Amino acid sequence: MYWSKYFIPTLKEAPAGTEAISHQLLLRAGLVHMLTAGVYTYLPLGYRVLKNVERVIRQEMNAAGAAELFMPCLHPLELWKQTGRDEVLKDVMIRFKDGRGREMCLGPTHEEVVTDLVKNFVQSYRQLPVILYQIQTKFRDEMRARFGIVRACEFIMKDAYSFDRDAAGLQKNYARMETAYRNIFKRLDLDVVVVAADSGAMGGKVSHEFMVPAEIGEDAVAVCGSCAFRGGASVLETAGGVCPQCGQKNLAKSPALELGHIFQLGVKYSAAQQALFLDEKGERQPIIMGCYGIGVSRVVAAIIEKHHDEKGIIWPKAAAPFDVEILTLPGPDDAEGVEPAARELYRALTEWGMDVLVDDRPDSPGRKFNDADLIGIPLRVTIGRKNMAQGQIEIKVRGTGAMVLVPQQEAGGRIKEMIAKL
Amino acid sequence: MYWSKYFIPTLKEAPAGTEAISHQLLLRAGLVHMLTAGVYTYLPLGYRVLKNVERVIRQEMNAAGAAELFMPCLHPLELWKQTGRDEVLKDVMIRFKDGRGREMCLGPTHEEVVTDLVKNFVQSYRQLPVILYQIQTKFRDEMRARFGIVRACEFIMKDAYSFDRDAAGLQKNYARMETAYRNIFKRLDLDVVVVAADSGAMGGKVSHEFMVPAEIGEDAVAVCGSCAFRGGASVLETAGGVCPQCGQKNLAKSPALELGHIFQLGVKYSAAQQALFLDEKGERQPIIMGCYGIGVSRVVAAIIEKHHDEKGIIWPKAAAPFDVEILTLPGPDDAEGVEPAARELYRALTEWGMDVLVDDRPDSPGRKFNDADLIGIPLRVTIGRKNMAQGQIEIKVRGTGAMVLVPQQEAGGRIKEMIAKL
Repeated sequence: MYWSKYFIPTLKEAPAGTEAISHQLLLRAGLVHMLTAGVYTYLPLGYRVLKNVERVIRQEMNAAGAAELFMPCLHPLELWKQTGRDEVLKDVMIRFKDGRGREMCLGPTHEEVVTDLVKNFVQSYRQLPVILYQIQTKFRDEMRARFGIVRACEFIMKDAYSFDRDAAGLQKNYARMETAYRNIFKRLDLDVVVVAADSGAMGGKVSHEFMVPAEIGEDAVAVCGSCAFRGGASVLETAGGVCPQCGQKNLAKSPALELGHIFQLGVKYSAAQQALFLDEKGERQPIIMGCYGIGVSRVVAAIIEKHHDEKGIIWPKAAAPFDVEILTLPGPDDAEGVEPAARELYRALTEWGMDVLVDDRPDSPGRKFNDADLIGIPLRVTIGRKNMAQGQIEIKVRGTGAMVLVPQQEAGGRIKEMIAKL
Repeated sequence: MYWSKYFIPTLKEAPAGTEAISHQLLLRAGLVHMLTAGVYTYLPLGYRVLKNVERVIRQEMNAAGAAELFMPCLHPLELWKQTGRDEVLKDVMIRFKDGRGREMCLGPTHEEVVTDLVKNFVQSYRQLPVILYQIQTKFRDEMRARFGIVRACEFIMKDAYSFDRDAAGLQKNYARMETAYRNIFKRLDLDVVVVAADSGAMGGKVSHEFMVPAEIGEDAVAVCGSCAFRGGASVLETAGGVCPQCGQKNLAKSPALELGHIFQLGVKYSAAQQALFLDEKGERQPIIMGCYGIGVSRVVAAIIEKHHDEKGIIWPKAAAPFDVEILTLPGPDDAEGVEPAARELYRALTEWGMDVLVDDRPDSPGRKFNDADLIGIPLRVTIGRKNMAQGQIEIKVRGTGAMVLVPQQEAGGRIKEMIAKL
């Protein structure tokens, strides 16, 4: 992709009123744009990151045996009345009457819809287990929209739902989802703490949250100042809950951002909505359910919170919008052949399957270097007139700052090696 | 993918009240499920088709130089008041007041939002042209929801927007988009008629529709009974408008389904919303716009309307949810090794990059063959006990009915060849 033909509107300054560093960098790096409070457009670069995060989630969900579907945003309120959650979630639900007079709402979550779906198709224990998931937009009438895409009125979630015939099946799927979640966050370089949690409006007795310690978090975890131990904030309040290695004195409370939440729902929805199956004995039983959410857009913000420096974002490889940025600095007549060298390298790297952005804008070196640091592509390859006169190209690793000069002919191979090592 | 671990709820009968063949097959093949009138869930198989159609559209949009972004569903009504379309589209817009008292609507289209976005970032002719597109859910308060996903309240559109500094630029981008559209429909085996059209609520003077002749269409085109000529319905009404080869007598009116519509908008939105740029002379001008829509979910229905027989769907390769279906028919103890042969073939084909579905259900051969015809995967590979006793595997082309028996060792290679020829 050539920057001059793309749409990356970087900003020199963060707009006023942006508190969180991730929010500032999302705006400054041209990743998102606010339409109105709590409502954001994903600009091309931000959309690429979002799709990368989604890809990691999909791969792990598919590997865990979940089947992807796509449920609607528009829900008949009638369905929510079956579980009483039209009242429980009243304050955050966006509701309206349509032209036919139907009471509708915009889905803040999809337990009722997926339960109704499975009820229509599953009658026998032979059809269980089933795990379904989707990546879909959710809506909340959020009065406290904050920190950009961290707490928004319209946001993207991955929500999965398991359906089992017994508690043992639920335990197995719950454990499988926990493993998938650990894999997802690991691949995205997010060091999460898994904490037993309150099930709140979802229901069920057992649930776990996946939290990442972060200044902007509205939850909390316990972190040890001396070793790698981290745990739920409740560790600080219980007598036996000390850090195994270092004792309680080094434990401190840290704000944390909730990125995922998994629930053993049991029969709350299936019993209320009459989603029943015939068991081995021919008896009708409510299906045993679990649900498993990840805030996809919030994950993007969390990655930035954890991976940046004073100059900008430092994308982990799995989320990076491009693998390589080629930055060109030609002279007035390009006697050194900077632009042709960039085109040739772009072609070679693209053929090898890399995603490459070429900053071919006729801007000052300062602006181009600053923007490269800001948008944070893992490798920056600078093709400048002076180095090119010596047949040399510069490669810099955004994360470490390590820089090498390599002969033009060897650049492609070196970049491939360096990407593989990131 | 193994059917027994997936979620493909096929139906023997089409539910009552479904008129269109595509609607019947979408439901019977387990592609979609109705939540409420005009609102559908895409089940796993249907979602795969949707993603395939989206992939074709993305590839052609990217090749045409358009940058993908993702705009919100929630719009402040304020923005729509700037163009007066809050009134023009009043009957189909879903509106509500949120908890803060903001007047909001669910986007039935995105001209106002994208114009506001570009206005924020584009100030100079040097930043033009820009082409942006998204694939996003749209909402209409549709009183006449019909034919399943053909006319729905919630549906998926690809909408692109071009921004130019002059009329010549618009003409160029318009032509480029028309070419991209022709490529998209060709790759999806949809033989479209491009017809000059009325611009309606969108605005501008020039627009073209991409129509596919189909019984369920609510528009019309002229088709010649003797040759390949097809044109707009207006051809039938104008004196000179005869079929060049065969004269007017063979021209007949056919119902047609609108799949795409492209518009030369001009300055309707940019003037109303003050999206201005400084031209070469330093004068402020409204940006010249075009917009380009494809009804993505409607395309899925159109493919089924055009590609089916009495037994079910016949997917074109580009849209097919899987490339190959392996259907197993083992004996009670599987002495012939049907299941291991299926697993081995699945592994080999998957390694070669094919998408493979294995119907491993313990169901009757009749049910499995019927479902294979119904869901319409291009190649059906039957591994049955009788053929396996002779070391043979059967390959059948869904589209032509052509069937071959091949030795087990050669099956993988033959399937690869046959897929390449589809």
